[in-house]
Amino acid sequence: MRTQVAIIGAGPAGLLLGQLLTKAGIDNIIVEQRSPDYVLGRIRAGILESVTVDALERAGVAARLHEEGLVHDGIELSFDGQRHRIDLHALVGHSVTVYGQTEVTRDLMAARQEAGITTVYDAQDVSLHDFDGARPVVRYRKDGVAHEIHCDYIAGCDGFHGVSRQSVPQTATQLFERVYPFGWLGILSDTPPVADELIYASHERGFALCSMRSRTRSRYYVQVPSSERVEDWSDERFWEELRRRLDPQSAQSMVTGPSIEKSIAPLRSFVCEPMRFGNLFLAGDAAHIVPPTGAKGLNLAASDVLTLADGLIAAYRHDDKRELDAYSARCLRRIWKAERFSWWLTSLMHRFPDADPFALRMQRAELDYLVGSEAACRGLAENYVGLPY
Amino acid sequence: MRTQVAIIGAGPAGLLLGQLLTKAGIDNIIVEQRSPDYVLGRIRAGILESVTVDALERAGVAARLHEEGLVHDGIELSFDGQRHRIDLHALVGHSVTVYGQTEVTRDLMAARQEAGITTVYDAQDVSLHDFDGARPVVRYRKDGVAHEIHCDYIAGCDGFHGVSRQSVPQTATQLFERVYPFGWLGILSDTPPVADELIYASHERGFALCSMRSRTRSRYYVQVPSSERVEDWSDERFWEELRRRLDPQSAQSMVTGPSIEKSIAPLRSFVCEPMRFGNLFLAGDAAHIVPPTGAKGLNLAASDVLTLADGLIAAYRHDDKRELDAYSARCLRRIWKAERFSWWLTSLMHRFPDADPFALRMQRAELDYLVGSEAACRGLAENYVGLPY
Repeated sequence: MRTQVAIIGAGPAGLLLGQLLTKAGIDNIIVEQRSPDYVLGRIRAGILESVTVDALERAGVAARLHEEGLVHDGIELSFDGQRHRIDLHALVGHSVTVYGQTEVTRDLMAARQEAGITTVYDAQDVSLHDFDGARPVVRYRKDGVAHEIHCDYIAGCDGFHGVSRQSVPQTATQLFERVYPFGWLGILSDTPPVADELIYASHERGFALCSMRSRTRSRYYVQVPSSERVEDWSDERFWEELRRRLDPQSAQSMVTGPSIEKSIAPLRSFVCEPMRFGNLFLAGDAAHIVPPTGAKGLNLAASDVLTLADGLIAAYRHDDKRELDAYSARCLRRIWKAERFSWWLTSLMHRFPDADPFALRMQRAELDYLVGSEAACRGLAENYVGLPY
Repeated sequence: MRTQVAIIGAGPAGLLLGQLLTKAGIDNIIVEQRSPDYVLGRIRAGILESVTVDALERAGVAARLHEEGLVHDGIELSFDGQRHRIDLHALVGHSVTVYGQTEVTRDLMAARQEAGITTVYDAQDVSLHDFDGARPVVRYRKDGVAHEIHCDYIAGCDGFHGVSRQSVPQTATQLFERVYPFGWLGILSDTPPVADELIYASHERGFALCSMRSRTRSRYYVQVPSSERVEDWSDERFWEELRRRLDPQSAQSMVTGPSIEKSIAPLRSFVCEPMRFGNLFLAGDAAHIVPPTGAKGLNLAASDVLTLADGLIAAYRHDDKRELDAYSARCLRRIWKAERFSWWLTSLMHRFPDADPFALRMQRAELDYLVGSEAACRGLAENYVGLPY
């Protein structure tokens, strides 16, 4: 097979890139190790910055998002028994849109199918070759048969554990990592959300987040030690723990019900520098991970993909490779700021097992300062809605 | 002897309190373990918030300050070879005044001497008694003779190592502390400052600060490991190290000369809760220490003293003790915010020996974000000039 751009990974990053390239007339094939159902079964965050919404519009897949997505003009911080609203829109003139990553993926899959563009699912033994030169090759096996894709560029959109970053010699990369000593135990339930907006709760028992997918489907999280096992958490235990971490107003509005999904996600910060290796470009989780606090993961992937798509379009249309050459540096500037924000919000809101009394007071003083300072609220808001692309 | 308020410590906090009480017709005696020359020989920071300037005006000791103090409308951050100005006045409508703590102390001493109010210097074996009840007593020896001061209230203004906090049962206090793994090696020199405003420099070799006492006297600091000995630092070595940590523009403007003082100060965050024990009130360094980054120490002492003076005045004039009852909680609210700011600015600007590559990138990303975000600059500025009293 021959294509212009081989995309590794059919998650939202790979699908969005494919869609943007297809719209620009650039031929592409997506190779995905998993099945469509597996990809759709991954539950991820669902807070979209306006940059991301714009990208989905440009890709022509924003109709249902605009119909079903919930526009949120603010968030709530809960601590010391009280809720404090941060009015994002009043502070910085932007909002965020609540629309699950699963739904974004579903819309992108449908658009790709409709356009009739090749996506190879269930590809085994995917490997990347010769991306240092002008003739990269992607090899894989499917149903016992070996395949090769010859292409101009490879886009590595296959996530943290994917093959793309691992195909690069270790000596060519510098990795930055922070593993947090806790995870998020999350449940999805078909119950109305506690409030119209997200509630980020700091409590001596640990962080909690009241989020949602729609007006009838809630997504809740509680911080748990990294060693925790999901089997030890009955729905009852989860609801009880969540309730204890919320302010009375929120706890009272909590409607419980059976979980339809329950899992524990680790928290990690990770950045790989650079993001380009010859004609291989990493985008999204393949190059960087943020802890979910602040929901930057999908949004960073979207801005990487926008940058990469524009670079590829300029290269094909005008033989102008300057944008591709600037890809890594340009993405990393935005990524490091989002990494900082995610690390900061994680550090502010969670209980760290090794925190001494001074550290605990620093968290509390920062929360006190934050809700009392318009400048600090604006700082949070401008990061939360997404720094300028 | 009998007085209304016995003040322990003749540093700026004790002297300012004495002056404010004297102005209000409240009798007071200051007891100081050291000599006047020793007190004046202590070199400390010299950045005054407007709250502090107002307090000194109210105490009637601001004439020379207004004549000789330098009003600074901004500060400079230096990193990655460049200087970035934070325009404090444009951002938050306030400035700071550069006027050495030694000069503040000198002005307060002169005013107290002029008013003919008792200050006992060189007091030995100072001890505090019966402050749980209505008749506190301060005992000390001087020139071999034992003395007693009977008073209504004791103000503990004798610093971190003073006897006041140590007189309180350990079970009555909760202490919060952070000792940083580095100190500041500082020199004073009669050379013109590098720039008109202070320069806070973040460099891979460590933090540096270009400060000043006047247009002809400079105060410079470089971060050094806690284990460092001042004997190992010749003037030449200091200047060379400072120069390496500055951006080229600043390094070029540096005028070197012989040091007239050279010392290493440790960096510590410390808070004692509460700040009142019966009729003993702690104020300033006796209750809390900040690292010098951001120069909040003297300013926090001044706001403690203002709160205490107003409480004592209300108690004596109107038999209204509500302000005294609220003293500890009111002071601590402001203190914790200043502790947070000082800890944050220290964490942002210094090199920590245990920092991993991710932590180093977080510092750099925060500096990048800070200088590019008006909201973040305003957050820094409002803390730097002093949060509302």
